[in-house]
Amino acid sequence: MIKVVLLGAGNVSTHLFEAFQETKTASVIQVYNRSKKRLQGFNHLVDTTSSLNELKEADIYIIAVKDDSVEALSKKLTLLNKLVVHTSGSIAMEALNNNHRYGVFYPLQTFTKGKQVDFSSIPICLETNIQSDIEILEKLAQSISQAVYKIDSVQRKALHVAAVFVNNFVNHLYQKGHEICQEHQVPFEVLHPLLLETAKKVTSLTPKESQTGPAIRNDQAVINNHIESLATQQQKDIYTLLTKSIQETHGNKL
Amino acid sequence: MIKVVLLGAGNVSTHLFEAFQETKTASVIQVYNRSKKRLQGFNHLVDTTSSLNELKEADIYIIAVKDDSVEALSKKLTLLNKLVVHTSGSIAMEALNNNHRYGVFYPLQTFTKGKQVDFSSIPICLETNIQSDIEILEKLAQSISQAVYKIDSVQRKALHVAAVFVNNFVNHLYQKGHEICQEHQVPFEVLHPLLLETAKKVTSLTPKESQTGPAIRNDQAVINNHIESLATQQQKDIYTLLTKSIQETHGNKL
Repeated sequence: MIKVVLLGAGNVSTHLFEAFQETKTASVIQVYNRSKKRLQGFNHLVDTTSSLNELKEADIYIIAVKDDSVEALSKKLTLLNKLVVHTSGSIAMEALNNNHRYGVFYPLQTFTKGKQVDFSSIPICLETNIQSDIEILEKLAQSISQAVYKIDSVQRKALHVAAVFVNNFVNHLYQKGHEICQEHQVPFEVLHPLLLETAKKVTSLTPKESQTGPAIRNDQAVINNHIESLATQQQKDIYTLLTKSIQETHGNKL
Repeated sequence: MIKVVLLGAGNVSTHLFEAFQETKTASVIQVYNRSKKRLQGFNHLVDTTSSLNELKEADIYIIAVKDDSVEALSKKLTLLNKLVVHTSGSIAMEALNNNHRYGVFYPLQTFTKGKQVDFSSIPICLETNIQSDIEILEKLAQSISQAVYKIDSVQRKALHVAAVFVNNFVNHLYQKGHEICQEHQVPFEVLHPLLLETAKKVTSLTPKESQTGPAIRNDQAVINNHIESLATQQQKDIYTLLTKSIQETHGNKL
């Protein structure tokens, strides 16, 4: 049984706590948070503390706080020879290097408060400073997920940037689509099946194989017509840049 | 029983044919295509012809050919008082106005050859020049789909532009994500659960509510760092423009 202490009481910590509740491989023995108030949801389920001096003996300490608090919190830890990991996609492992043994336990998913997640399909990206520590991290990750990867800090940073493209930026394009629908009193739900299928498609074909539309067909009449029809300069700029990028990427003549 | 003739033998026609096979409300009695060779897949299933003079008597003639052939094909039809519809998102209904009764039967989905689709969740957008014809089109559409909408030509054009954003452009962002992964020897599949969840999320929350990431947090340190890390000017341009657009849309100070 791997004993875990969670540091932080936000979304990621809560979802991890719930996932570890379902496994016999690991047990969360304590949750720490600076603010007592934020610990209320955990109080009846597990030992909690808002003092770093009261941290229990565990095998792994998982830091799941806001990105810009990770390093500061790590520096306050005085755990001798204990494995400390953070859960952030964008912070280098070395931010924890005041500890002897440290690493990363990064679940790559977008977590929404109150929305249950199925951890079994969530990729968990692992890294450790001491080679042999990867084993216990793998055991812990595999207890809740079927998609466990060893990813070094450079790769993790690339993944995080790629995630901005396929999550944050994609969501913004959904918003532009939503905006265009609203401008013409069309319910956005008409587009739900299309956007779901578009996402599903790239899990079996590569995005390059899946590309369709006026840009890759080089259909300049439709492209001009679309740009002219758009209501805002912002929409026009996005349309123009992404059309150009599709054509460059697929080697069409411009 | 609504008698249907399909004009065209490509993806859309094939998928419609398969969907109509499953219902008792409609029956495809003939498939036309200019090229006999393209009709081979239909020959053992239904009457076929490559001559417009041999078209059978039907209630509805559905044109499912390439966008730039729709109008020309329509002009060759000499059907007296028969309802003729096309299936295109980007062509005005009036392209068929050499017929007396005409309309649009537009299934809004991305069709991949050989990949079975579940028509029941595919939105079908309808329009007719004669008010009373909407009824038979609705009956036909409802026989294969649970998502039937009356959408006029102006709205349909807006939908088609919105679809470029949520399908073609989104797919291109997937490709940029794929590219960044490849550059760092990270399997793109690590991002599959994230991109699927991102799509699923906007079917229950609005895209505006779903927006996360460094742009909306106004996290300039992470933004600069990401842009610097990108390998190509194209990636940098997309990152910069979409970040700016997110910040403008959400009213963050720049």
